[in-house]
Amino acid sequence: MEIKGPLSGITVVDLTRVLAGPYCTLLLADLGARIIKVEQPEIGDDSRNFGPFENGKSIYFASINRHKESIAIDLKSTEGKAQLHALLEKADVLTENFRAGTMEKLGFGWETLHAQYPRLIFASTSGFGQTGPYSHRPSYDMVAQAMGGIMSLTGHPGGPPTRVGSSIGDITAGIFTAMGVNTALFHRERTGEGTMVDVSMLDSQVAILENMIPRYHISGEIPGPIGARHPTITPFAALEVKDGYIVIAAGNDAIFARLCMAMGREELISNPFFLTNPKRTEHEPALKDELEVTLKTKTAQEWLDIFEKADVPCSPINNVAQVMDDPQVNARNMIVEADDPTIGPLKMSGNPVKFSAFEDPTKRNPAPNLDEDGKKLRSEFKIKS
Amino acid sequence: MEIKGPLSGITVVDLTRVLAGPYCTLLLADLGARIIKVEQPEIGDDSRNFGPFENGKSIYFASINRHKESIAIDLKSTEGKAQLHALLEKADVLTENFRAGTMEKLGFGWETLHAQYPRLIFASTSGFGQTGPYSHRPSYDMVAQAMGGIMSLTGHPGGPPTRVGSSIGDITAGIFTAMGVNTALFHRERTGEGTMVDVSMLDSQVAILENMIPRYHISGEIPGPIGARHPTITPFAALEVKDGYIVIAAGNDAIFARLCMAMGREELISNPFFLTNPKRTEHEPALKDELEVTLKTKTAQEWLDIFEKADVPCSPINNVAQVMDDPQVNARNMIVEADDPTIGPLKMSGNPVKFSAFEDPTKRNPAPNLDEDGKKLRSEFKIKS
Repeated sequence: MEIKGPLSGITVVDLTRVLAGPYCTLLLADLGARIIKVEQPEIGDDSRNFGPFENGKSIYFASINRHKESIAIDLKSTEGKAQLHALLEKADVLTENFRAGTMEKLGFGWETLHAQYPRLIFASTSGFGQTGPYSHRPSYDMVAQAMGGIMSLTGHPGGPPTRVGSSIGDITAGIFTAMGVNTALFHRERTGEGTMVDVSMLDSQVAILENMIPRYHISGEIPGPIGARHPTITPFAALEVKDGYIVIAAGNDAIFARLCMAMGREELISNPFFLTNPKRTEHEPALKDELEVTLKTKTAQEWLDIFEKADVPCSPINNVAQVMDDPQVNARNMIVEADDPTIGPLKMSGNPVKFSAFEDPTKRNPAPNLDEDGKKLRSEFKIKS
Repeated sequence: MEIKGPLSGITVVDLTRVLAGPYCTLLLADLGARIIKVEQPEIGDDSRNFGPFENGKSIYFASINRHKESIAIDLKSTEGKAQLHALLEKADVLTENFRAGTMEKLGFGWETLHAQYPRLIFASTSGFGQTGPYSHRPSYDMVAQAMGGIMSLTGHPGGPPTRVGSSIGDITAGIFTAMGVNTALFHRERTGEGTMVDVSMLDSQVAILENMIPRYHISGEIPGPIGARHPTITPFAALEVKDGYIVIAAGNDAIFARLCMAMGREELISNPFFLTNPKRTEHEPALKDELEVTLKTKTAQEWLDIFEKADVPCSPINNVAQVMDDPQVNARNMIVEADDPTIGPLKMSGNPVKFSAFEDPTKRNPAPNLDEDGKKLRSEFKIKS
């Protein structure tokens, strides 16, 4: 099947491996682009060997590389280089996530390719970017999470370091690269000029630090981990109920008032300690205790029903099984499926960007085996093998 | 000053408030777009009241709304509606992050505006999206983090719930919306057609769950929080050294071998328990103990120097102050500055998407006061006040 989207007709030659780059091209595929994944013969993408496996095929690989085509090319051989050139002649975008310098060594540096293919967009996703003192260092998700600061903000005070439970070091870099590719396509459409897009995992982590840098710059106080609450909005936290925790997010005074009314704790609204958000944040431990005394008298589901009626932003802390069953997640087509000939039907996260002009299909093509589309692509692009 | 970028010449009329939407238009501003922030008279964006403050101005607001222009318009009044139409006549993009249904109530629903301005791109960022059973519910960052599953994966086993230390519930939705706007601009450039872009915070959280959904779908095992390590790659974790923790990310067998050699623990390479990544993940606690016995004999800096020479991906766990001082972060211009007339010089995260075709300026214009650009904009767009 074909995905019809804003990038229909765009061909991406994809040299990326593992997660950051392949996540970018997954997003581009969901927008309608054709992704031709170029893999090293016999070995292929490293993540083909990442567990868990089903019938010998990696779930990790299968989910991130759905709806792509695979061709095996040895980029170090003369024949392989010619084969890549045959693809590039008809490509709109080249994506790669090697360490800085590798593309130049292979003879496919930006300067060289831009001279030969002036309309080609060249998108690099790397650990540290194409410039700067660390540019040649290796990186992985955890390095980006640790070096970029988010690990220092995640976890409980005094507790051990805590990783964000999804590889956001890779994933945010992948999303920013996809945004850059789309911008570059727009720029090319207006000017005819192909551009290089240079995104790093470290830069991407710095970009998502929100207002932490200006806060530290002005106050001189280094922000640390604060558990399950917001640093400057209160109450905005996971709070304890009879049978576990729920999240309550009172983003302004009106919501705080509705929360107190719904809990039968009207007196908290006029308590001078809790009158404004800055005061509530200052007295956060006291307010938490006051709220939890009452919250612990009912179950999560009882409170969620009450708060929903009272228009108070709240949520259960869903696990992955509950996310998959959630009516809203399903109504939004956020769980899509591929019929993988090896694995069987495989459910995966869908496309979070919906367009009025396009359908959002419920199915995807499965991830290819290594060189699965090689024969077809060699014929289509007149590649000698 | 003006930012020259791929979106130069693009005008965005920005009705968004607080974080998800304003983060989207921050990214669009960094790409060169002109952002006209429309705010409620007298009150303005809610986040003008979020601490911390410097000389009475919100740092939170100032960092996310840098390089935007502000005009106060009462969207509920007849005059205000006419004023917004005057802006829309010359706009390329409209962004909003009200609850679903609010734009329709104000008379600015997508169907209405698309009929009147067929080239206008209409980008909505909301808690739950424009469709589905929860679409009219309120949301905030923590609701998205809790409902979308990432909170169930972050933290230590058996420990209390843990929030990701940055508002990624808002921020990922903002990035996906910015990607959608760029795609929609490309689509319009090719076809002349304006599109609606519909992004939700909940959908965006589901999209960054990586391979968690397929893993659960195939194995039936619900993934939980696992502290500071990767679920399927080992060693890939924060590990204890003499004076704290460092992160080591051994993404494949070759790196694991280099790590062991650099530590003088060659015997671990051929230990049958640790021979492959799946085996190392199975025996993670034992491997962690073996590595930490040696790691605890030297300081973080000593090990980082050793591992850097050995080409082993590693990192200190930087706090925000260390991020700001990092040579690579600075070499990449990831800390930019605005001269805010109220706050003074304000340092903030920069733009993580670098282009060969454009400079990446080190300065930004400061965030506007409420209606600061009103007079100029009323004259430019021939708005009657």
